[in-house]
Amino acid sequence: MGIREDILKMKQDAPFLAASDTELRNRALENIISGLENSRDEIFAANRADLDAAAKSGVSDAVMKRLAFTDAKLSDVTEGIRTLISLDDPLGKVSVNRKLSEGLVLRRVSCPIGIIGVIFEARPDALVQISSLCIKSGNCAVLKGGKETRNTNRVLFDVIRSSAVSAGIPETCYMQAEQHSEIDELLKCHSEVDLLIPRGSNEFVSYIMNNTKIPVMGHADGICHIYVDEHADFDKAVSVIFDAKTQYTAACNAVETLLINRKIMDRFLPVLDEALKSGNVTVNGTEEIAGIIDVNMIDEDDFREYLDLAVSVKAVDDVDEAVAHINRFGSHHTDCIITEDDDAALRFQQMVDSAGVYRNCSTRFADGFRYGFGAEVGISTGKIHARGPVGLEGLVTYKYILDGDGHIVGDFASGKKKFEFTDL
Amino acid sequence: MGIREDILKMKQDAPFLAASDTELRNRALENIISGLENSRDEIFAANRADLDAAAKSGVSDAVMKRLAFTDAKLSDVTEGIRTLISLDDPLGKVSVNRKLSEGLVLRRVSCPIGIIGVIFEARPDALVQISSLCIKSGNCAVLKGGKETRNTNRVLFDVIRSSAVSAGIPETCYMQAEQHSEIDELLKCHSEVDLLIPRGSNEFVSYIMNNTKIPVMGHADGICHIYVDEHADFDKAVSVIFDAKTQYTAACNAVETLLINRKIMDRFLPVLDEALKSGNVTVNGTEEIAGIIDVNMIDEDDFREYLDLAVSVKAVDDVDEAVAHINRFGSHHTDCIITEDDDAALRFQQMVDSAGVYRNCSTRFADGFRYGFGAEVGISTGKIHARGPVGLEGLVTYKYILDGDGHIVGDFASGKKKFEFTDL
Repeated sequence: MGIREDILKMKQDAPFLAASDTELRNRALENIISGLENSRDEIFAANRADLDAAAKSGVSDAVMKRLAFTDAKLSDVTEGIRTLISLDDPLGKVSVNRKLSEGLVLRRVSCPIGIIGVIFEARPDALVQISSLCIKSGNCAVLKGGKETRNTNRVLFDVIRSSAVSAGIPETCYMQAEQHSEIDELLKCHSEVDLLIPRGSNEFVSYIMNNTKIPVMGHADGICHIYVDEHADFDKAVSVIFDAKTQYTAACNAVETLLINRKIMDRFLPVLDEALKSGNVTVNGTEEIAGIIDVNMIDEDDFREYLDLAVSVKAVDDVDEAVAHINRFGSHHTDCIITEDDDAALRFQQMVDSAGVYRNCSTRFADGFRYGFGAEVGISTGKIHARGPVGLEGLVTYKYILDGDGHIVGDFASGKKKFEFTDL
Repeated sequence: MGIREDILKMKQDAPFLAASDTELRNRALENIISGLENSRDEIFAANRADLDAAAKSGVSDAVMKRLAFTDAKLSDVTEGIRTLISLDDPLGKVSVNRKLSEGLVLRRVSCPIGIIGVIFEARPDALVQISSLCIKSGNCAVLKGGKETRNTNRVLFDVIRSSAVSAGIPETCYMQAEQHSEIDELLKCHSEVDLLIPRGSNEFVSYIMNNTKIPVMGHADGICHIYVDEHADFDKAVSVIFDAKTQYTAACNAVETLLINRKIMDRFLPVLDEALKSGNVTVNGTEEIAGIIDVNMIDEDDFREYLDLAVSVKAVDDVDEAVAHINRFGSHHTDCIITEDDDAALRFQQMVDSAGVYRNCSTRFADGFRYGFGAEVGISTGKIHARGPVGLEGLVTYKYILDGDGHIVGDFASGKKKFEFTDL
């Protein structure tokens, strides 16, 4: 008795969802909006039970905020679903349409990935967003949310699944896993599950990545950098760094390491230090930095992800040294240069090997909503398939469809027929 | 003393190749064409040495043909490089260009994947094609070819690297591994190598997939199907099946299983059987098939990759049963329906979960050259990133470039500024 049997049924029915038209999938999303609104009392009651249990176990205010499913969050998620409905169908898009020879036409057409397993933190709004993205993109999903919102998730998932089914989606296409042991079962389903998206702590994501043959999309670390170039505007630099460090310290896109050009550090570091200390940010720096401002000294190879009001500071000679440091010590998430020099910016943006490479703005912009994707299922620091915030486009693949009229390769091998390769 | 140190240097220099302009990379390709032509005597002499050694060890004529680097193959590869030079630069393509807010512009720009490890069979032309694709796409590469063409590979690789270096590409960007033990070292370089493309036997590709944390692109099995629908044109069916089975039996895109609609099998099977036997194809069939034509009987779950003049035959009721069989027993490579019925074709092409889904043409068309890609580094049966024959487009990823003027997230969180999401 486990989830594997349900996943096998899901796999059998996945092609029916793949072949569904956009009206059916949009109708499912509309049903979810009305379903959520009609079940608000039940949802809020379940959430109160989760919050009471959490309060008893003494979780912090910050965590309580994430667990709470409020009226405002309900509005946010239904608004998000309306945005999704309004977006073009990501399926059936033709990216290659080529006549190979008379009567032989090749098309590359977008299609769902298949079955996606998403393991996410205790945030009820995440469950709604992730399910909606999967429905719009025609993917089946196995969802496992954080146990602290188990009651809320159960009600939300029932509404989502019954809404999808009433629109015509097979009921096998979506399932929720509730037991932690089911994660290990899921990790073994590499013949059925096409993609895993784990969200949560570094340790958890690394555990997933190291214990499955299923492709994994996501990120473990988020060590983001800001490089202050010799041609930086100091006001922009200080304001962007302050926002990137303090606006939400627990986020993966918060800045963790500052690289300062040696030509300006004597003038810039005191200004920076004053701003950071006004925000209660602990400043850690190399020996060289400690010679200019008052910092906690760190080694030249100790650049970590704090996820807290703390930052590392180091000096570099130029863009190339900044790039080399970022590519070596970073996590390929999001990195920024502060400069008024277009050549320096171009070089930095071409050479930094990260999903987001910014100029003169906060690393905190790395987010699916802020990129205009409507929602995201996660942020990928991998370079294969989707990179950065992952929305609808990251949830589809393509297949090559070739239509002929009895065409055989022998005729082309013998020279009887020739390829023409005309894009239509 | 191993290859890891060289790979670390390659990683440091990869950003310079990523930032190189298209002229530099095309000049490298032009240098390779003249380099190969100028070194033809040396190349052919090295190849003769390989062929002599192979002849002594008694390899088959078919294998000897693959090992030989002839005048015709030299023309083919230089012609292929000329095609690559004429293709658009795959780097720097902007697929998203969006104003997020006043002065804050997001672009999604294509860029190289980074370092690619390609392990391929003893075919000297493959070495040239793979290196050329990597140069055009700005990727560094670790190349390991089959040992039977070691002498030829050494000369070819020297020409390729010196040609690339004389165009301005860092000499660290391309290296050849020659020892089998170096493959295991390569598999451990998951912090440096971004993608592995293994080609060769099923066992070898499976070994790679099971022994590395580096993403792997490729395919182990190639169990391709042809489904003969109740509305099939029998002449097309026989001609396509004969081509797909006999034109080159050792290829991964040769057909291995035939699914025949029950409504037509009494009439179709004798015609098919006669054609296959005229081509010396061994026909294996289920008990039901054995009741109609003379076949070697196989079990209902024994559908294998023969890579030889042999085929499995089974009866199905309709498109849905054919799809269910293919998705369960296939390898998601290339599958075909023979039908004159548009509805049946559409349903089949939507529901079969394979990289290529064909109608009325041979599965042997699944190939980068035949798709008009110029060349391919391999065929992917995975659904993440590139699928099917992989050319230039499968060798690039993208990064999000965000340009601001001191923009901070705090202003958007507080409501002082609003996102507008205007596509430019």
